[in-house]
Amino acid sequence: MAFFRLHNQLVLLSSAQPSLPARIPVSKYSLASSRPPSLSVHRKMSTFKQEPHKLLLIPGPIEVTDEVLYANAYPPVAHTSADFIPIFGDSIRLTRELLYSSDAQIFLIAGSGTLGWDQVSSNLIEPGEEVLVLNSGYFGDSFSDCLKTYGAKVDEIRADFGAAVSKSDLEKALLAKKYKAVAFTHVDTSTGVLSDAKMVGETVKAISPDSLVILDGVCSVASEEIRMDDWSIDAVISASQKGLGAPPGLSIVAVSQAALKVSATRKTPVTSYYASWKRWLPIMNAYESGKPMYFATPPVNLIRAYHTSLKQITRAAPSLADRFKLHKEASQRVKDAVAELGLKQVPTDPYYAANGMSAVYLPDGLGVADLVPRLAQRDVVITGGLHKDYKDKYFRIGHMGVTAVNPERGDLDKLIAALKDSVREAIASKKMMPIQS
Amino acid sequence: MAFFRLHNQLVLLSSAQPSLPARIPVSKYSLASSRPPSLSVHRKMSTFKQEPHKLLLIPGPIEVTDEVLYANAYPPVAHTSADFIPIFGDSIRLTRELLYSSDAQIFLIAGSGTLGWDQVSSNLIEPGEEVLVLNSGYFGDSFSDCLKTYGAKVDEIRADFGAAVSKSDLEKALLAKKYKAVAFTHVDTSTGVLSDAKMVGETVKAISPDSLVILDGVCSVASEEIRMDDWSIDAVISASQKGLGAPPGLSIVAVSQAALKVSATRKTPVTSYYASWKRWLPIMNAYESGKPMYFATPPVNLIRAYHTSLKQITRAAPSLADRFKLHKEASQRVKDAVAELGLKQVPTDPYYAANGMSAVYLPDGLGVADLVPRLAQRDVVITGGLHKDYKDKYFRIGHMGVTAVNPERGDLDKLIAALKDSVREAIASKKMMPIQS
Repeated sequence: MAFFRLHNQLVLLSSAQPSLPARIPVSKYSLASSRPPSLSVHRKMSTFKQEPHKLLLIPGPIEVTDEVLYANAYPPVAHTSADFIPIFGDSIRLTRELLYSSDAQIFLIAGSGTLGWDQVSSNLIEPGEEVLVLNSGYFGDSFSDCLKTYGAKVDEIRADFGAAVSKSDLEKALLAKKYKAVAFTHVDTSTGVLSDAKMVGETVKAISPDSLVILDGVCSVASEEIRMDDWSIDAVISASQKGLGAPPGLSIVAVSQAALKVSATRKTPVTSYYASWKRWLPIMNAYESGKPMYFATPPVNLIRAYHTSLKQITRAAPSLADRFKLHKEASQRVKDAVAELGLKQVPTDPYYAANGMSAVYLPDGLGVADLVPRLAQRDVVITGGLHKDYKDKYFRIGHMGVTAVNPERGDLDKLIAALKDSVREAIASKKMMPIQS
Repeated sequence: MAFFRLHNQLVLLSSAQPSLPARIPVSKYSLASSRPPSLSVHRKMSTFKQEPHKLLLIPGPIEVTDEVLYANAYPPVAHTSADFIPIFGDSIRLTRELLYSSDAQIFLIAGSGTLGWDQVSSNLIEPGEEVLVLNSGYFGDSFSDCLKTYGAKVDEIRADFGAAVSKSDLEKALLAKKYKAVAFTHVDTSTGVLSDAKMVGETVKAISPDSLVILDGVCSVASEEIRMDDWSIDAVISASQKGLGAPPGLSIVAVSQAALKVSATRKTPVTSYYASWKRWLPIMNAYESGKPMYFATPPVNLIRAYHTSLKQITRAAPSLADRFKLHKEASQRVKDAVAELGLKQVPTDPYYAANGMSAVYLPDGLGVADLVPRLAQRDVVITGGLHKDYKDKYFRIGHMGVTAVNPERGDLDKLIAALKDSVREAIASKKMMPIQS
């Protein structure tokens, strides 16, 4: 990965260039090289290969590149060091770029994706305020729990298992009551259901322009297109270990300036300390403007790894737009292979099926334990269901990040072959009739 | 590091052994080998060397071993995988062992050390309850802020800059008012002041046995002895990047069974979602008993790195007891060298000076910018003060972990030489008279 794409020119990674300037239009971004890599970095980089391992195709954590893992193994540096500051600043800028936002405030905080729920719940919602949750699975339930913990009054529109909330149901709810915010899971990892983020954003703003639109993008950022500004999304919650292609442990949140103002002008104090944007905002602004500032020690290794992945996602081939297309193609390939085996998708409508993962019903009479270990024997890790009523009835496959965009890895070939063999073997072991394909 | 010490026998790391059983006395622990390392692991492990870098001698993050960094670069695994479960379980058990506790509940959660404050504040304290904070620096102020955020009424005993709260002041406060909890910073990273944890624990339990004793050990765990059970400490808060020798990003909290019961029987609901022990307890118990369970994705790479460091701390030479002794010796060596240069410690009494770090006054007329960059030119990273009133008057050095216990690294030799040269050069540049030593 010695060359990165910049304005359709190939740029040598080792060319030292200044950090990205703060808050400039995406089209004007220039390559951020946090530090001129020394010869020694290049030599070592080229020899570092991650351990042989089973192919990790669950919906996060996912397969990551050698470069990202090597960055995670870089010796810890002082969080105040000249080496680290541009890495943090660029990570903020590149996250914004990835979401097609010109001015969203980015928060990068040590924590899992779940911490993002605490951030939006504690900063944006005051006790007693009404929030509408569009529930398309397990993560909708949990997000509601989190909102209620911080005092929100939650109404839910619960889609059937495998479905997303419809535009008409959303409109009805918005016309019936005024909500402080509408929250939804862009891709619910439990069902593989993709909600239509553009539709949600536009519908909310058309009927209730003051309501904030909160998108849980833990399982969608970088594998599904999200145009935060164009689609009127006020907050995007994500985490490092899915489409973003880094190890888990970093909570990534983007907040519109309008939502940030709502938080800043709230009447009651924020009841979380660690998740309080008031405490983190000066830190993020300082690092973005090239200065260190202390609230809590940032996870320097993980931010370096995330930064490496962000550069690969936004500056290397394929382009960001092509990445989304490649995710769609990879997804279609998996879904076609599954259909060929006679298996049904959990998402009831292909339009609402995620492109970074698939949730698939097992053949009748088979449980998760009949299939998942058989793939593991073939060195492919997938996982079972995650929904209290159906978890033994379906399995889930992740096809995000390098697995989707680097076909030369052969991940999908290996997956599809292992899936075919395992399904057939599992069916045979139960002495069932093969399903018609 | 192919051999680890166990009951004074050398044990080959690659010998596959079962995980540590849950909650057994420390003396009965056996070596936990999470997975039998393959030949390939051994080969690669032996060739992985971290990047050349400036010696990181700030009070965290610190220098870490190649093995720890390599673990951080292990390909992400499923948090539910048979590979990962014993690593998580053993990390819990080894953390308990390190704190000399037989039954403390351990919480390992993605987050910075600060998240530990949220955990104890939100789970142990109900709104309106009285907490006494023994303040020996910046981190005492912040801990108070966190407690107040969750509704605590905080009284502080503020020690003078460079001093710890005295036993008599603590006794007076405990006799004057009944406190739900007494919280203190074991080593305040801003001042290098070490509080007497044993005295605090014993004094509180003697006068006010129901008061919980909360120790902030972010800058003390694994560099200072902490006997949680013997000293009646109810909660220890720590983080991965200081004495524990791993990269930053993991919040580590230990809670006595008594305190856990206080949390479980509280009258008001816990007002944090991500920091709620009720949500994490089943997860920690599941992993400790060898089963996976999901609340939020654990930072699998960082937990593997932490596990690697814990094994080095508790199972490799030197022994745990020797480690504390070696930290004292390393600390004395640094403090003697500083005294030889005619410089004064911030801690006013050597008894209250931390063993994992030093805070040292600059010579009169010199600021942080006169000294710290001069050490950096000599490839040694130290840092300035962190106390609003004095931050340009002193500097801080970390001497924790491998820097303290592995003299063959030569870290202290390099530090002391660089410090001598830099101080002399800085003084000369100001045309000041050398200080009498």
